[in-house]
Amino acid sequence: MKTTGGTDDQKRRAGESAAEAVTDGAVVGLGTGSTAAFAIRAIGRMVDSGLDVRGVPTSFASRELAREQSIPLVDLEEVVGGDEPGIDLAIDGADQVVIDEGGAEEDVGAMIKGGGAAHAREKVVDAAADRLLVVADPSKEATTLDSAVPVEVLPDARATVAREIRAAGGEPTLRRAQRKDGPVVTDNGNLVLDCSFGAIDDPASLARTIATVPGVLEHGLFVGLADEVHVGTDDGVRVIES
Amino acid sequence: MKTTGGTDDQKRRAGESAAEAVTDGAVVGLGTGSTAAFAIRAIGRMVDSGLDVRGVPTSFASRELAREQSIPLVDLEEVVGGDEPGIDLAIDGADQVVIDEGGAEEDVGAMIKGGGAAHAREKVVDAAADRLLVVADPSKEATTLDSAVPVEVLPDARATVAREIRAAGGEPTLRRAQRKDGPVVTDNGNLVLDCSFGAIDDPASLARTIATVPGVLEHGLFVGLADEVHVGTDDGVRVIES
Repeated sequence: MKTTGGTDDQKRRAGESAAEAVTDGAVVGLGTGSTAAFAIRAIGRMVDSGLDVRGVPTSFASRELAREQSIPLVDLEEVVGGDEPGIDLAIDGADQVVIDEGGAEEDVGAMIKGGGAAHAREKVVDAAADRLLVVADPSKEATTLDSAVPVEVLPDARATVAREIRAAGGEPTLRRAQRKDGPVVTDNGNLVLDCSFGAIDDPASLARTIATVPGVLEHGLFVGLADEVHVGTDDGVRVIES
Repeated sequence: MKTTGGTDDQKRRAGESAAEAVTDGAVVGLGTGSTAAFAIRAIGRMVDSGLDVRGVPTSFASRELAREQSIPLVDLEEVVGGDEPGIDLAIDGADQVVIDEGGAEEDVGAMIKGGGAAHAREKVVDAAADRLLVVADPSKEATTLDSAVPVEVLPDARATVAREIRAAGGEPTLRRAQRKDGPVVTDNGNLVLDCSFGAIDDPASLARTIATVPGVLEHGLFVGLADEVHVGTDDGVRVIES
């Protein structure tokens, strides 16, 4: 999980700004990362003050934090499908997000996630939400995405996926663990290839290409999902609609 | 794993016909299912007679059978990538395969797999092979695919994937286990939704749609992978190129 770049104050402002969108009775997707954590803490204070919300965590880490904050939690299956209410709103962080107007307008809100290797479940929850608010600090802003794209792969498919990533113009690197020998293993028991493509001119197209590679569980390109990006700055918050 | 439909003689003829394509020194993907098992046994006899092959199993079941047949095995990582030889040939079964000329010509060889819930690794191996020979009996032939498509999903994503499958015109059913309470759990620790779409007019398009649903690990539509289909009949084998 990237924690470099933005200051805690910037992250706090972004998280608290997004948390203001949570209304009484809402089902809220709780994102992962240091900026989303500020949103979860803000929602925790709202719950203390009597707000009725139910949270759907996007990861082990966000579940742990939400419990600590006494936010009532529900399983995805309890709120999605049939006559269930669905997820009203998700608040999630980004490792890099397009908000500059220099790029293609349709790419505003496209982002790269997965620094924390939680992007599979994050995408499941974020995509299921009626609205997704992304929280970020200015160091995450980009005109064109160019960070490495984390790709979660079946352990057995590591070599074949790496070959397909190279064929698509990327350079894959197996993510190594710290405080554990060998590779990072995701909460789903898989590996992560961090795949550098340089500047990504057409994120939607690359997202489709990676998704169809056999053995890929999920990748960190989130395209067409964000509704708003809340960027915390040194003196306030900029909200960009996408 | 479907074992109804074809006779053992039909399956044996298909499996043995495909096994004849295995040459000395080859790396061979070893498929899953009752018809591919006949190919593995035939390759086992060729190894007994001195053929030099290395097998890459597509599943727990095919690994077990290949060991029983004393076929030397290698990991995918030992043969894929860098200067490695790759997989020369894979031989795999199908639950349903397009071979009739009544359908669209470009769909010949498109198939549905996953009756044995092994389709994720099957697709990884089959797609990595230079050539894929599909083995089948006449009961698996179709003009238009219309079997349910097995979709392997993260346990957490069961409800959200089901919703997206319905949005794409399908009807998902969680596959229940036998000899175990609850659902079938795959070798990768996930669940299987068997998704009925009725007649599938454009398998390539549906394959892309399902692949991009968050939480989907792999689905049973194999499009554009097969090079030949070997269909065992009561008096011989028909080989269809695709």
